[in-house]
Amino acid sequence: MGFDTLEDVRALLARIGGPDEAVREAAAARDAVLTKPPGALGRLEDLALWYAGWRGTLRPEVTAPQVIVFAGNHGVTAQGVSAFPADVTAQMVANFNAGGAAVNQLSRAVGARMDVHALALDRPTRDFTRGAAMDEAEFIEAMRTGWDAVDTASDLLVVGEMGIGNTTSAAAIAHALYGGAARDWVGRGTGVDDAGLARKARVVAAGVARHGTSDGLEVLRVLGGRELAAMAGAILRARHLRLPVILDGFICTAAAACLEAARPGALDHCVAGHLSAEGAHEAVLERLGKVPLLSLGMRLGEASGGTLAIAILKGALACHSGMATFDEAGVSDS
Amino acid sequence: MGFDTLEDVRALLARIGGPDEAVREAAAARDAVLTKPPGALGRLEDLALWYAGWRGTLRPEVTAPQVIVFAGNHGVTAQGVSAFPADVTAQMVANFNAGGAAVNQLSRAVGARMDVHALALDRPTRDFTRGAAMDEAEFIEAMRTGWDAVDTASDLLVVGEMGIGNTTSAAAIAHALYGGAARDWVGRGTGVDDAGLARKARVVAAGVARHGTSDGLEVLRVLGGRELAAMAGAILRARHLRLPVILDGFICTAAAACLEAARPGALDHCVAGHLSAEGAHEAVLERLGKVPLLSLGMRLGEASGGTLAIAILKGALACHSGMATFDEAGVSDS
Repeated sequence: MGFDTLEDVRALLARIGGPDEAVREAAAARDAVLTKPPGALGRLEDLALWYAGWRGTLRPEVTAPQVIVFAGNHGVTAQGVSAFPADVTAQMVANFNAGGAAVNQLSRAVGARMDVHALALDRPTRDFTRGAAMDEAEFIEAMRTGWDAVDTASDLLVVGEMGIGNTTSAAAIAHALYGGAARDWVGRGTGVDDAGLARKARVVAAGVARHGTSDGLEVLRVLGGRELAAMAGAILRARHLRLPVILDGFICTAAAACLEAARPGALDHCVAGHLSAEGAHEAVLERLGKVPLLSLGMRLGEASGGTLAIAILKGALACHSGMATFDEAGVSDS
Repeated sequence: MGFDTLEDVRALLARIGGPDEAVREAAAARDAVLTKPPGALGRLEDLALWYAGWRGTLRPEVTAPQVIVFAGNHGVTAQGVSAFPADVTAQMVANFNAGGAAVNQLSRAVGARMDVHALALDRPTRDFTRGAAMDEAEFIEAMRTGWDAVDTASDLLVVGEMGIGNTTSAAAIAHALYGGAARDWVGRGTGVDDAGLARKARVVAAGVARHGTSDGLEVLRVLGGRELAAMAGAILRARHLRLPVILDGFICTAAAACLEAARPGALDHCVAGHLSAEGAHEAVLERLGKVPLLSLGMRLGEASGGTLAIAILKGALACHSGMATFDEAGVSDS
């Protein structure tokens, strides 16, 4: 399976399947007899049922989670939308590869494998206020990088990104998909000042006005970046593998939202790992009907929040799969 | 060190110390040069500084966390305030000891040692609507069980509880400490119906009116339970060991609140692990100025939420202690 054209991607989106409902029901039946009052583990119970259903596995565990960080550069940085120079993208990729970034530490802490894919950092996407960020071939290549990056032997996927300028790209995507005013979708990214924030809003408005599309995949192509397209490709691959995904922050969620716009239900195998402090993340999650697992004021990207949330899912599955039932423990259930 | 009387406990509360401010400042200086925008790890950064300061350790890790579950029985169950029979307390203690409860699975998932202390389950505290739950000797014995249960070699403490009827006790404590109406502090516990909820409010109002005290330690003695006194004793011991504590849910927090009422600042070495779905937890945390790390709709007690939050602290310390600085990584910091 794979794809060579935008039409192939649309065909893959049309063919997505759902979870194993019988396994999900069996998991719900088990949940009901575990030694706790009904519902007392809250969202941990929902997570366990969601995961069991998608994996089609009774009493599952997460033993081989994969974290993938995609990096790309953005022509729109020419508009002065970022507080950091574009060189930082490549510097941070070196830091990921050397094991020095936050996501390296978090991956180790939760027992996840971490992979890094730098996408043509020497060829930034086009400034989307002047043309499409990517042509179809560039877009497909980036999506395929994501598709191919997924380890088919993993049992959980977290995707994240690094790319100076990409909060502007994500804001433009959200504005194109959901309307409203450009200023509703922009935030301070890595730390722009008030003037920078106003500039970002103007750039986002100009980009969205120029392209005038709300088609999910087109929005991702003309306003996105290579790392955003790669995240979407990985999330789509995960769906075809029935591999559950934990979404990261604003940029990851904006990329994912393009899939949902192209095919409602395309993110049913995904949960939101955390609520980013980056401005519009909460509004995008609301449009997607996702309630984040964590809300810790993080706004780093690079899969950091999604990776930390692996620990929550592991806890949920440990309870579901390891707890005694009322009968086994000899505990009165009423 | 230790105590034999209520006055000894007051003396211990008077002698509590603070964190190592020099280490905390050094940790803040390190945080400022790690490869991330300032503040981009949100509360993970606050947690790392808090932990480093209390431990007095630069670049600390949590390698020996201890989870302690205390269990007690409550005479107030005679008033029909619980949906489960009092026998369940002992049954659940057996389940903890056999490894079948939620907290067993969560402790294993986060790499924590777990201990269980059942406190005189065959001698429930007195029904607090008819007299003091504990006399001074009983109260001191229970507090000392908690004090002695803390492993001085551990580097993090989570305390939790099991005790049919103890949400009523915790509600009475909150009402005694903070006033308002009894109904503001009661919740459904393990699942009482509307009539049960109204009955709980009447019982709480009657107990608080009967004893008429808002002194922290007295409130804990006359309205609390052995497992609540034990949690308070363990938290106080942790303070004298400069051992950071993650609080669990409503009942744990109510017990801790008695220490704070007796000695403002007594909980500075504690963070709130999670927000319980049990009615008044949020209001108690607000009075204590604590913002919970997790909010996942859990309402199980038995240290489950606090134990899951260990994973968040571990992630925070992994980042703080393991990340490269801008200089080390050759990343531009502006």
